[in-house]
Amino acid sequence: MPAIKGNMLIAQSGGPSMVINQSLVGAILEAKKRREIGKILGSRHGIKGILKHDIIDLRRESPATLKAVANTPSSALGSVRSKPSPEDCRQIFAVLKELQVRYFFYIGGNDSAETAAIISEEAAKENFELRCFHIPKTIDNDLRENDHTPGYGSAARFVAMAVMGDDLDNRALPGVKIDVIMGRHAGFLTAAAALARKEEGDGPHLIYLPERPFDMDRFISDVQAMNARFGRCVVAVSEGIADKDGNPVASKFLKEVDSHGNVQLSGSGALGDLLAQEVKTRLGISRVRADTFGYLQRSFPGIVSPADAREAAQVGMIAVREAMKSSSGSIVIRRKSGAKYAVEYGCVPLRNVARETRHMPPEFINEAGNDVTPAFIAYAAPLAGPLPKIGRFKGFPVAKPAPSAS
Amino acid sequence: MPAIKGNMLIAQSGGPSMVINQSLVGAILEAKKRREIGKILGSRHGIKGILKHDIIDLRRESPATLKAVANTPSSALGSVRSKPSPEDCRQIFAVLKELQVRYFFYIGGNDSAETAAIISEEAAKENFELRCFHIPKTIDNDLRENDHTPGYGSAARFVAMAVMGDDLDNRALPGVKIDVIMGRHAGFLTAAAALARKEEGDGPHLIYLPERPFDMDRFISDVQAMNARFGRCVVAVSEGIADKDGNPVASKFLKEVDSHGNVQLSGSGALGDLLAQEVKTRLGISRVRADTFGYLQRSFPGIVSPADAREAAQVGMIAVREAMKSSSGSIVIRRKSGAKYAVEYGCVPLRNVARETRHMPPEFINEAGNDVTPAFIAYAAPLAGPLPKIGRFKGFPVAKPAPSAS
Repeated sequence: MPAIKGNMLIAQSGGPSMVINQSLVGAILEAKKRREIGKILGSRHGIKGILKHDIIDLRRESPATLKAVANTPSSALGSVRSKPSPEDCRQIFAVLKELQVRYFFYIGGNDSAETAAIISEEAAKENFELRCFHIPKTIDNDLRENDHTPGYGSAARFVAMAVMGDDLDNRALPGVKIDVIMGRHAGFLTAAAALARKEEGDGPHLIYLPERPFDMDRFISDVQAMNARFGRCVVAVSEGIADKDGNPVASKFLKEVDSHGNVQLSGSGALGDLLAQEVKTRLGISRVRADTFGYLQRSFPGIVSPADAREAAQVGMIAVREAMKSSSGSIVIRRKSGAKYAVEYGCVPLRNVARETRHMPPEFINEAGNDVTPAFIAYAAPLAGPLPKIGRFKGFPVAKPAPSAS
Repeated sequence: MPAIKGNMLIAQSGGPSMVINQSLVGAILEAKKRREIGKILGSRHGIKGILKHDIIDLRRESPATLKAVANTPSSALGSVRSKPSPEDCRQIFAVLKELQVRYFFYIGGNDSAETAAIISEEAAKENFELRCFHIPKTIDNDLRENDHTPGYGSAARFVAMAVMGDDLDNRALPGVKIDVIMGRHAGFLTAAAALARKEEGDGPHLIYLPERPFDMDRFISDVQAMNARFGRCVVAVSEGIADKDGNPVASKFLKEVDSHGNVQLSGSGALGDLLAQEVKTRLGISRVRADTFGYLQRSFPGIVSPADAREAAQVGMIAVREAMKSSSGSIVIRRKSGAKYAVEYGCVPLRNVARETRHMPPEFINEAGNDVTPAFIAYAAPLAGPLPKIGRFKGFPVAKPAPSAS
């Protein structure tokens, strides 16, 4: 399919990440090389910017600005969480046609892929020749067809570093520490806490993922066992843990739902506080603390995985190249086999990535369902990149002086 | 007063920081240069390690280990929160005498200075010639006699970077965001959130400190005004905010008290959740989120202010030098006057720093009590060090095409 002449429009959607702007700038830089592409337009806050005609001219941004934006966390064009109705699509197409847009790029997760799919399908119904591409992004790492997704590596790096520091803090002032980590249905980000371990005895000592039913009694006895063994216990818990019937434990406190049907799980410390209270009451341990890492996991500046930044830029670039030769698709990342970490990129139908998400494969979770396996560590370590070195004393003990002979 | 021959013992106490090991290693390296000092002993978990004879030989640690430990967050010797009784002191002195310790160094905050003062005073009562020094550390920045304290700069840097990223996140998905920051009675760390601002409209848009009574109605109307103005609102709140009668708002949920009489405020998301609930209910704003930065503020690896790391090492070194010429004291940091940031060190009586803390001076807080002043920014910026550059689009708007003439 040959390229068509026209303008392009790009937007960002869903939760921000530390490298989503790499994808945006990657696409802009590649588009600048394409004679087929005229204007490079950016819509603010996803499709909402098209509907409200809040659109900017990205071709006029300087190379220095583009470079600085690429290295800045969060979505520089703003984001949105909304699914277009057929009526929205008609309005969107009216604007796109006015602006002579023939290339549409949407950066985001599974919900954003669904939006791109809807727009692509509705355009086809109207015989509007619009090339629609989804550029992957999600810190949850839950897009189907991908080995991993841009945004995950840097968020995993943040989580690993946070737990590494937190474990040192807990060694200094021992007790039970519960760290609540993002991840609605997929435990990949919580599992990344395991990367914090360097030596025997390092936390996290327990990891609970949404992929396994969460049982409060089992959790309490796990904590009791680890606390008995190490005199302390650091726990990584996914915000998305759910009971055996699939009800999120956090849904007792949180009621908000977005237009894709997602319940709000982040932005509250309630789950951590509930778990801490249970440990305190049932085990009689006095020092029990909970932290919820919250939005820092996806927005903290400067904690970027080198591989993640590079791949995020690549998927943006490759989406523009794919749009020169086909009508729609989602860019995916596949890992090459071999000892050395390397990836290759592909393009799959939008519906293959839209809506449904993927989960941690069983081989990444231990049998007891309270930790990850070495296979997960091997999978995640190159994504998060090299972590800070931790110094520890060898600790040469000083014996009690022998009683004096006098 | 001439130096005495003997061994030294050093320990860490109170909440860890990102640079408390710099002070420890600074003291060890200086002690190695002193012929008067024999063994360099480290007690684990503060005075608890002396009482339990959990003591290690720090002179045997390699230079590489010392360097790595200095660059590692949290207290490498472990920490403790406990105040010695006269009976504890007698046991402590028995162990110190057995080990021929004549130099005692205690790294920590106001409570640790009090411990050092008690030990110094009790030793004098028994005519045990023990040189007792306090080495300052606290992320709260609340030690009297100091311009600022080691640990604050790096924690302030973390807070500023976290709020910088969080503000970008909130720009992308607008709403009300409440960030709860550490600081029991002093607002310095919460105030550091203001360093995140680079341009007009950047958050935090409101800052609440323990130094001003917190009034819920006033808070709600402040948030309403900022949200009307910017379409969003990022709020930095100290965990220690208290009502007009001085009762911490968080004390409604938290009941734990340590042996120095401090109420637990950290390790729970309850305060943030309460404030978010009030905003949601009373203002009818749908997207309201709260994050409690928690222990990451004091333990995150790699986020170290260069000035803070340097000064933390210096106070450790200077404590050892002071111990060669006087019997007790607390090392303090003073800022030199002049345009360029520079400090000098002093040594004051232990009781000048022990127990009572200092607060934000009035000239650092705006009249309305919901923000800081430019004087605070000038004070805090060199302590936190240079922050990451944030890239933003210039944002050249694209006009709606004129209606076609056809």
